Amino acid sequence: MTFRLEGRDGGARAGILSTAHGEVPTPVFMPVATAGSVRTLSPDELQEAGSTCLIANSWSLMVRPGVEHIERSGGLHAFMRWPRALFTDSGGFQTIKKGILVKRSDEGLKFKSPTTGQVDMLTPESVMDVQQRLGADVAMVLDDCPSAGAARGAVEEATARTAMWARRCLDSHGRKGQLLFAITQGGVFPDLRERSTHELAGMAFDGYGIGGLMIGERVDDMRRTIEGSIGLLPVEKARYLMGVGSPAEVLGAIAMGVDVFDSAFPTRGGRHGSVLTRTGKYDITRGAMGRDARPLDPGCRCRVCAGFDRAYVHHLWRTNDTRWMHLLSYHNVALMQELVRGAREAVLAGRFGSFREEWSRAGVPGQ
Amino acid sequence: MTFRLEGRDGGARAGILSTAHGEVPTPVFMPVATAGSVRTLSPDELQEAGSTCLIANSWSLMVRPGVEHIERSGGLHAFMRWPRALFTDSGGFQTIKKGILVKRSDEGLKFKSPTTGQVDMLTPESVMDVQQRLGADVAMVLDDCPSAGAARGAVEEATARTAMWARRCLDSHGRKGQLLFAITQGGVFPDLRERSTHELAGMAFDGYGIGGLMIGERVDDMRRTIEGSIGLLPVEKARYLMGVGSPAEVLGAIAMGVDVFDSAFPTRGGRHGSVLTRTGKYDITRGAMGRDARPLDPGCRCRVCAGFDRAYVHHLWRTNDTRWMHLLSYHNVALMQELVRGAREAVLAGRFGSFREEWSRAGVPGQ
Repeated sequence: MTFRLEGRDGGARAGILSTAHGEVPTPVFMPVATAGSVRTLSPDELQEAGSTCLIANSWSLMVRPGVEHIERSGGLHAFMRWPRALFTDSGGFQTIKKGILVKRSDEGLKFKSPTTGQVDMLTPESVMDVQQRLGADVAMVLDDCPSAGAARGAVEEATARTAMWARRCLDSHGRKGQLLFAITQGGVFPDLRERSTHELAGMAFDGYGIGGLMIGERVDDMRRTIEGSIGLLPVEKARYLMGVGSPAEVLGAIAMGVDVFDSAFPTRGGRHGSVLTRTGKYDITRGAMGRDARPLDPGCRCRVCAGFDRAYVHHLWRTNDTRWMHLLSYHNVALMQELVRGAREAVLAGRFGSFREEWSRAGVPGQ
Repeated sequence: MTFRLEGRDGGARAGILSTAHGEVPTPVFMPVATAGSVRTLSPDELQEAGSTCLIANSWSLMVRPGVEHIERSGGLHAFMRWPRALFTDSGGFQTIKKGILVKRSDEGLKFKSPTTGQVDMLTPESVMDVQQRLGADVAMVLDDCPSAGAARGAVEEATARTAMWARRCLDSHGRKGQLLFAITQGGVFPDLRERSTHELAGMAFDGYGIGGLMIGERVDDMRRTIEGSIGLLPVEKARYLMGVGSPAEVLGAIAMGVDVFDSAFPTRGGRHGSVLTRTGKYDITRGAMGRDARPLDPGCRCRVCAGFDRAYVHHLWRTNDTRWMHLLSYHNVALMQELVRGAREAVLAGRFGSFREEWSRAGVPGQ
């Protein structure tokens, strides 16, 4: 049993994901450590801010610093100095980014790094090998992710390939103690999404990612797709909505039955001046912030909100002290962790509806 | 008694500077918080790294965020969230930077900020007013600092003006609990330096800065000037060598009898990749660092050296995570604090000579 449900409230669930590096209470929000670091934040700070699980990108780590170096360091946990649970993504998602994909075939995905020029052939077998060598607690299959707006034919092909690759991943995966999650595709075509989910649910994965969303599709399409997928996934397995997102989106998806989230939203947003609060978000670089003596979020009890005011963080921004990015990233992560922690408690107490209502004005969908 | 000597070993001294925000053991090294923040480091981290006293620049704070804002925040300590001792410099030193000084006269210095365009007339009376409103524990007089290589006539004029301004500062300063330090000038002309030191030593300041050094003069000229100055300063007052420096320079000056230091060397150096160690310095951006599993300094017990290796910090640099600047700044500050703490203990134990020998290979003069 890698996942056990502890409570439900409507569609919302509270559970525990058991990993080789400890139990992860769900719903869980994973900050993104693409290249082995959550930008500007130390492992101690991430834990202090309430993080129990991170996600890194295995292809980014292949490019820099290379899998061999991480193996020599004692694995990804040791390399990153992260003592708790850790996911790695396969790299499949990078196909939708500009200037990376060189060739896509049934064999796999050929990538070229825009920064180093390194060329890698990612196959289902090679991404399993890499993630097993990295030693993540949860590995993700290689999926074929079509772009938003792709024609039905292309999405159908990607859906079939995703199922074929998932089977090959399952067959080649053997690391004890490492969980393996599938990733559903199918774009926003209900029948294709249903087919993909059905095919993957029939294989013995430890959990299921819902992939190919938050890439430019309409909000109502995203919502409908999640809703349609959830009912087809095994109730006893963890469900992971990949790349989501803002407080409002996370709350909406928890309500539908999602257990696991990841997004660069709080950290990338923080590095661009965006401050998350319980009542929406704002930009710390606005001139008025230079005279605002309130904490970043008056409702927040994080270390940054206890220690500094908006005017000071704005001043750090104006005077080019990168510490402002750190302070915003810390606060934004702490807020997301407070959100999922509160959601979990609310589910267990049977008051998720009112909890969601309290937070409903937080964040803006689509960012 | 604002300063008391607790021990001597040859020329080296150990003392206590008493301020309104606590006692500062000397020798002391002050990290530089020009605009109210030591770049990348929080007040908690600075204290954890052993810092007991910081220095900010009152003119930089006049430009951003403005003295009124800091007053409304409850003073500079409250604005910065720094609970311990704090110096402010007057701004006089900015004359040697390019593109700031508009006009220099007996009345004062007219500055124009290259970033905001704000024009300020700094007079001895106005810099006292500003520093009293900021509420620093130690204020510095307005001095007239000639550039390195200035002709004798210009240095003579600046020396006379510095004495006149020091008298006006003393006459207009009245904040209880705030100490006031003079700044000697005279370039590297022994007789002018002697005249400046003699004139200022005759006025009732709480301590004495040795100014106008580390601005491009020859190393032996600097050393000779410090040596010549020390003997003319009152033995019962703290001596502050402004803008110094590297481990080697700090050790050399402690040996001559200096008590107080400040320099952006560890933090600015850190933000440019320079790592200080007990056996010299190196550049973390060098390719070989990507495979170096040693701590930044194997002899260091700071939190960064306990937690991360060179390869990981190099990786953060390569992948553009500004956390590398933070980690280097923290380590470099911790090393400087360990240096002065060790020097103090060595003086009190009568073994400063051997202590200095142990550290003698650390750092490179002139950076």
